[in-house]
Amino acid sequence: MNVAILGSGNVATHLSKALIKAGYPIKQIWSRKNENAINLALEIGANSISSIKELSENIDIVIIAVSDDAILQVAQQIPKFLNQKLILHTSGSTSLAVLDEISTSIGVFYPLQTFSKNSDLDFANIPICIEANQEDVLESLNQLALKLSNNVSKVNSVDRLILHISAVFACNFTNYFYSIAEELLNSNHLDFELLKPLILETAEKALLNSPAKVQTGPAKRDDQITINKHLKVLQQDPQIKEVYQFISQQLVKKFK
Amino acid sequence: MNVAILGSGNVATHLSKALIKAGYPIKQIWSRKNENAINLALEIGANSISSIKELSENIDIVIIAVSDDAILQVAQQIPKFLNQKLILHTSGSTSLAVLDEISTSIGVFYPLQTFSKNSDLDFANIPICIEANQEDVLESLNQLALKLSNNVSKVNSVDRLILHISAVFACNFTNYFYSIAEELLNSNHLDFELLKPLILETAEKALLNSPAKVQTGPAKRDDQITINKHLKVLQQDPQIKEVYQFISQQLVKKFK
Repeated sequence: MNVAILGSGNVATHLSKALIKAGYPIKQIWSRKNENAINLALEIGANSISSIKELSENIDIVIIAVSDDAILQVAQQIPKFLNQKLILHTSGSTSLAVLDEISTSIGVFYPLQTFSKNSDLDFANIPICIEANQEDVLESLNQLALKLSNNVSKVNSVDRLILHISAVFACNFTNYFYSIAEELLNSNHLDFELLKPLILETAEKALLNSPAKVQTGPAKRDDQITINKHLKVLQQDPQIKEVYQFISQQLVKKFK
Repeated sequence: MNVAILGSGNVATHLSKALIKAGYPIKQIWSRKNENAINLALEIGANSISSIKELSENIDIVIIAVSDDAILQVAQQIPKFLNQKLILHTSGSTSLAVLDEISTSIGVFYPLQTFSKNSDLDFANIPICIEANQEDVLESLNQLALKLSNNVSKVNSVDRLILHISAVFACNFTNYFYSIAEELLNSNHLDFELLKPLILETAEKALLNSPAKVQTGPAKRDDQITINKHLKVLQQDPQIKEVYQFISQQLVKKFK
């Protein structure tokens, strides 16, 4: 099974490495920025191509791992002679149907994880959500996914979108709050290191309990004295103050 | 060194257990709700008292672990014969000065962690922030804290308040987002289990990198197509939609 990867971002990079580890040779890599394709190809031992038209007839699986708004445009450039091969995208919020006209075998391979180029990840525990346009395609996608991870689920486009929104809250938005905490500490010459045990415990507690049931903090208790003390300190930073006030109000409302 | 604990909440419970483990006998426990004092006293093998006036002359350290707005009122009930003993509170957002009139030896013992009654915690790695009104009091407080944790810092009231605000973001507010993610998944009959590897990886990534540098997600990329898809789905839940929209706008502003 020869694989081609279209894209060179975080998902493309981690997925390429995991596929190679699982015994799938990555034959060709393309990226909008040719330089990125060259670099990734060098790193993992594949060939870079400067145009999607150069995809080889020997490719069995094409994985489109580009930003959501580019998926259709990239897919439409795939040569017609691949229109019975397995064509996949990796997006949480893009429906399978975007690939309808591209091939008779289409699917989605959505790894529910946050990827950063410089941090290594073990795919074995990453939930992979798969979807396909036919039962037999879904089954081959399932076989492929199981070579990478023990955690494979069949998820349709509607549910995958809900999963992606949940992931935005649980990952992107929480990381934004970590960054606010870091900023507050740094600008007051305090060490972010002090918060790390708390960050880890908060996450670990959510793995063992329903988060709503272990909510703590001033807003949960509707402790307006503490909230007002905090808002007074945050006057020095209006954007952070606004976020504090907004989220506290939401929490007070939720737990009233 | 005989210790008395005023309070029976999450901090009082965990701190009592950790102190006993470190060899400090808890002699007396009081709580606003006498029943809670009786239960905690039974659990850890101490005596409960139904009034603060019953504190014994043999007590060397009184730890006030009650909600912020009750600290002063509780402290004022401590018998005058203890006014040269070590009196501590455990609050992040309350200044040391609140104890000024209570004793000649006053301090703050603030464990920077989230405590839930039903989950066990190892104090060894919990950052403990200490403050005292005199050098020698600070030194005995330091000795006490080091018996419980390897991570003791001297932090004044102003900095402790900043730390507490940062903890609200990194813990209370992130947990609120976990709870929104859980709610979204549950109401769509999807399993919260699927998000857990992502929650853990997001936290672990923040321990190894500056969170601002590893921010990912649609809002960071100013990907309005995906954001609008998400907002459309969230129309079914106006409160969650409002939060999504607000935080996305903040993130777009931050990374512009």
